[in-house]
Amino acid sequence: MQTVDFNSDMGESFGPWTIGDGVDHELMAFISSANVATGFHAGDPGTMRRTIERAKQLGVAIGAHPGFRDLVGFGRRHINAPAQELVDDMLYQLGALRELARVQGVTLQHIKPHGALYMHLARDEEAARLLVENLQRLEPELLLYCMPGSVIWRIAKELGQPVVREFYADREYDLSGSIVFTRNVRALDPATVAARVLRACQTGLVRTVEGEDLFIEFDSICLHSDTPGALALVEATRAALDQAGITVASGRPVVASGLSVASGLAPRWGAKQP
Amino acid sequence: MQTVDFNSDMGESFGPWTIGDGVDHELMAFISSANVATGFHAGDPGTMRRTIERAKQLGVAIGAHPGFRDLVGFGRRHINAPAQELVDDMLYQLGALRELARVQGVTLQHIKPHGALYMHLARDEEAARLLVENLQRLEPELLLYCMPGSVIWRIAKELGQPVVREFYADREYDLSGSIVFTRNVRALDPATVAARVLRACQTGLVRTVEGEDLFIEFDSICLHSDTPGALALVEATRAALDQAGITVASGRPVVASGLSVASGLAPRWGAKQP
Amino acid sequence: MQTVDFNSDMGESFGPWTIGDGVDHELMAFISSANVATGFHAGDPGTMRRTIERAKQLGVAIGAHPGFRDLVGFGRRHINAPAQELVDDMLYQLGALRELARVQGVTLQHIKPHGALYMHLARDEEAARLLVENLQRLEPELLLYCMPGSVIWRIAKELGQPVVREFYADREYDLSGSIVFTRNVRALDPATVAARVLRACQTGLVRTVEGEDLFIEFDSICLHSDTPGALALVEATRAALDQAGITVASGRPVVASGLSVASGLAPRWGAKQP
Amino acid sequence: MQTVDFNSDMGESFGPWTIGDGVDHELMAFISSANVATGFHAGDPGTMRRTIERAKQLGVAIGAHPGFRDLVGFGRRHINAPAQELVDDMLYQLGALRELARVQGVTLQHIKPHGALYMHLARDEEAARLLVENLQRLEPELLLYCMPGSVIWRIAKELGQPVVREFYADREYDLSGSIVFTRNVRALDPATVAARVLRACQTGLVRTVEGEDLFIEFDSICLHSDTPGALALVEATRAALDQAGITVASGRPVVASGLSVASGLAPRWGAKQP
Repeated sequence: MQTVDFNSDMGESFGPWTIGDGVDHELMAFISSANVATGFHAGDPGTMRRTIERAKQLGVAIGAHPGFRDLVGFGRRHINAPAQELVDDMLYQLGALRELARVQGVTLQHIKPHGALYMHLARDEEAARLLVENLQRLEPELLLYCMPGSVIWRIAKELGQPVVREFYADREYDLSGSIVFTRNVRALDPATVAARVLRACQTGLVRTVEGEDLFIEFDSICLHSDTPGALALVEATRAALDQAGITVASGRPVVASGLSVASGLAPRWGAKQP
Repeated sequence: MQTVDFNSDMGESFGPWTIGDGVDHELMAFISSANVATGFHAGDPGTMRRTIERAKQLGVAIGAHPGFRDLVGFGRRHINAPAQELVDDMLYQLGALRELARVQGVTLQHIKPHGALYMHLARDEEAARLLVENLQRLEPELLLYCMPGSVIWRIAKELGQPVVREFYADREYDLSGSIVFTRNVRALDPATVAARVLRACQTGLVRTVEGEDLFIEFDSICLHSDTPGALALVEATRAALDQAGITVASGRPVVASGLSVASGLAPRWGAKQP
Repeated sequence: MQTVDFNSDMGESFGPWTIGDGVDHELMAFISSANVATGFHAGDPGTMRRTIERAKQLGVAIGAHPGFRDLVGFGRRHINAPAQELVDDMLYQLGALRELARVQGVTLQHIKPHGALYMHLARDEEAARLLVENLQRLEPELLLYCMPGSVIWRIAKELGQPVVREFYADREYDLSGSIVFTRNVRALDPATVAARVLRACQTGLVRTVEGEDLFIEFDSICLHSDTPGALALVEATRAALDQAGITVASGRPVVASGLSVASGLAPRWGAKQP
Repeated sequence: MQTVDFNSDMGESFGPWTIGDGVDHELMAFISSANVATGFHAGDPGTMRRTIERAKQLGVAIGAHPGFRDLVGFGRRHINAPAQELVDDMLYQLGALRELARVQGVTLQHIKPHGALYMHLARDEEAARLLVENLQRLEPELLLYCMPGSVIWRIAKELGQPVVREFYADREYDLSGSIVFTRNVRALDPATVAARVLRACQTGLVRTVEGEDLFIEFDSICLHSDTPGALALVEATRAALDQAGITVASGRPVVASGLSVASGLAPRWGAKQP
C-alpha cells in the first residue's frame, strides 16, 4: 500500500461543551479526512463552520457524520425508527453540512453514519438500501465509509456507490472480522497502535483477540478523536506512516473550483473497486 | 398588477403534532409559494419531505423558513444571540431543506426567516448584513422575502440580492406601514380578507387601523396557515384573484432540469427592481 | 364491579402544538384519573400547570406519565438505554410534575409510563425492578398503572407497590391477553366501545380478535385521548357506566390537606390486592 | 465574619460532555453548597443523581440551578418569555432535582437561577415576584441565592423568602456594586483570588475596577467551576479561609431525617436578616 486515507471524527462539540480532550484543532493536522458531526448526536452549526474552516486550511477532506437524533445519548443508543425516517434525518444533516461547506467553497467528500446508526446500517437491509438509493439520486460520486462485509457495503457495491473500507486503529478485531466494541475504551499505547496500523498497511494483517492473524482489506484508517490520548495516538501513527513512505491522502480534493455539488472527480485511490 | 405571488407557511408540524387546523395539504392548492419550516422552530425531516412532495405535485415553489432554535416557543420568542450564530443556524436549515428538495429534483426559490427571527432581521443591521453577504456567496439568485423598508430589505437592495416584498393579508397595518402584531389573532371573515387583498392588488391601497388609506408596493401576498380558518381565507382570496384575472404565480420555476443549485433563471416578475 | 377508575392521557400538547382533536379540556369532565405528560415525549411545564388546574377543578386525580426522551417520536420509538438511565429520567419527570402539582396543593395519585417505555417495563426485568425499588424508597403508596401479567406488575406485587390493572377500551385483545397494537388506530364506534367496556365491567369478559371471550381483571379503564373521536368515545362510555350504576372514581383523593408528599391514604378500591 | 458559605455550580455536564476542566468531583471537597444544573441549560438526570451522591458523601448542601431552556446557548442567551412561562420552567426543574435528591434522602437547601435567567430576575419585577410568590407557597424556608440590591433580592425580603447574598470571587466589581461580566474569563492567580476573598470576609472590602474600595455584605462566596483553573482557585481560597479560622459551612443541613420536604430548620447563619 502506497497511499492510505486517515479519518477521524471531528466537530463533536455542542454549544459550550467539548468532547474528549478537546484536541480537534491539533489532531486535524495529522489526518486526511474529517467526519464532521452534523447536529443530531453532536455538533452545532457554529462548530460545523469552524471545523470546515480548519479542514480547508489544512487541506483535509470532509464528510457528513450523521447520527441518531439523540444528543444526551451521543447517538450511541439504538432508536427503533422506520427506514424512511432515518434516511430523511440523514439527508437533512447531509444538506446542512453541505451548505455550510459550500459557503466556504468546500465540497463534501463522503458520508459516514455515526455510532449506533453506523451499526444499524451495517445490519438493516431496508434502511441501508434506502440510503444508498437516495445517495445515487443525490450524488453518485459521494464516498460512503463503511465496514467491508456489512449489509450497506454490499448494497453500495450492488448499486454503484463508491465505498471506503475502514480499518479501526483503536478497536480490537475478532477472527470473524467483527470489531469488539467496548463502552469504556482503555488508554492505548501510541507505539503499539502505530505499529499495528503500519503492519496492517504493509501486510494486510491484524492480530485478533483470539491471538491469530486476520487478513483485512481497507482504504482508510479510522482513529476516534474521543479515545483517551487520541492526539498522541494519531501523531505516532502518522509519523510511522510517513517514515515508512506511505502517503496519507484523502480520496477526493477538498476545495471545489466552482460551486457544483457533484464534482464527478475520480477518487485518488481505488474506492470503487471493492 | 397582472401577476402576484401568494405565499404561506407550510410544514409546521413536528413529530406527531400538527399546527393550526392541519390543512397544509388542502391549502397548498391555492398558493404559489410555500415557506417550509426547517426544524428549529417547527418541522422535522419527514414533514419537510412530504411538504416538498406536495409542493412539487402542485407546482408550488418552495423556500426555506428558518427560525430561532426554539421548538417550545415556536420561534416566536426573541433569543439574544450573536449575528454569526444566527447566520450559521440559518445556513444549516437552508441546506437541510435544499438537500431534501434536491433528492426530489426540486430547487429552492427563496428564503424567508420566521417569526421573531424575521423581526430581528428587519431591525438588526449586523445580522441582516451577514446573512445577505452569505446568500450572495451561496446563491445570488435566491429570493429573499422581507418587509419593504426594513433593514434587511435595504441591505439586500444594496448588495443585489433579489427581494420579494410582502403584503400581509391577515394582519393590520398602521399609517407608518408597520404591521400591528397580536399574539392571538381573531377569526377573520373570508369575504373581507379577499376584498382587502384584491383592492391592494388593484389599487395598492390598504385601510389602516387609523381608518385612513396607505399606499403599499408588494410582490407577494402572505396569509398565515395557522390563522384560525386559514383554509377558507386562502380559498376566498384565491377565488377573488382568479375572477379579477390576476394570475397567481411564483417567482421562479419549481422543478429543476438538472441538479445545479444556482439556476440563474430570471424571476417571472420584477423582484429585482425594488 | 361497583366502582371503576377511568384514565386517559392528558397534557400531550407541546408548545404551540395540540395532540389529537385538542379536546383535553372537555374530555377531562368524564374521567377520574389523568396521566399527565411530563415533558420528555410530550408536555411542557405550562401545559402541565394548566392540566393540573383543570384536573383540580374537576376533582380528577393525576399521575405522572413519563416517556422516553424523544419528542419527535412521541415516546413511541424504543431507545436502547441502561436501566439506571431510564429510571433517572423517570424520577426527573415524576418530580417535575409533583412540584407543579404541590404548588397548587394537589398530590400525585399514580405513575404510568408512556408508550414504548410502558412496553419496555412490561418486559425488562432490570429496568422494572429498579423503578419499583426507587418508588418504594420515594413513596410506597404511589399507585403504579400497568398490565396484569407483565413483568413490572409481578415485581410491584413482589415488592409491595400498589398496582392499578388496566383495561384498554380502544385496543383489541388476543387470547393470550396481549393487546394487539396498531400504529394507525381506526375510528371506533362510540356505542360499540361503550358496550364493550360495560360488558367487561359487569362480566369481566372481552371478545378477542380470535372471536372468543377472554376473562380479564382490571381496576381502571384506559381510553387514549389521541384516538380519533376520543371525546365521543369517552362520553358514551361514561354515560353507559353511569346508567348501569357503576361509579367512576379515582383510587386516591385529589387535593391534599397539607403539602406532605406521601399521604398514606388507603386507595378507595382494592388496588393493593392484585 | 466567623462562618461563610462557599458555593459553586456543579453537574453542568450533559450526556457525554463535561464542562470546564471536568473537576466537579475534586472541587466538591472544598465547597459547602452546590448549585446543581437541572437539565434546561445543562445537566441531565444521570449527572444530577451522581452530583447529589457526591454532595451527600461530602456533606455539601445542594440547591437547584435552573436556567433558560437553551442547551446550545448554555442558558447564557436571554430569551424573551412571559413571566409565567419562566416560573413554570423553574418549578419543573426544581421538582426534578428535589425528587432525585429525595430518593437519596437529601433535602434541597436553596435555589439559584443560572446565567441569563439570574440576570433577568435581578431586573424583571414581574418574573421575580411571581417566582418568590410560588416559592412562598411551595417552601418558604428554601434559601434564594441572589445579588444584594437586585429586584429579586428586594422582593424576597418583602415577601419573607430567606436570601443568601453572594460575593463573586472570580468576577470584577465596579463602584456601583455591579459585576463586570465578560464572556471570556482570563486565567486568574489562585493566591490573588484567595487574598481577595479573605479580605472581603475579614473587612467587607473589595477593590473595584476603578481602583477604589467598595464595602459589600454577603453570606456566600461564589466561584464558578467553569472558570479556567477553577480547582486551584477553590483550593487556594478554601485553604486561606481555613488558615484564618473562618468556617466554611452551608446554611442548612444536607441530609433529612425524614422525607418531609419543608424541614423548617433555621439557617445556620443569618440568611433571613438581609
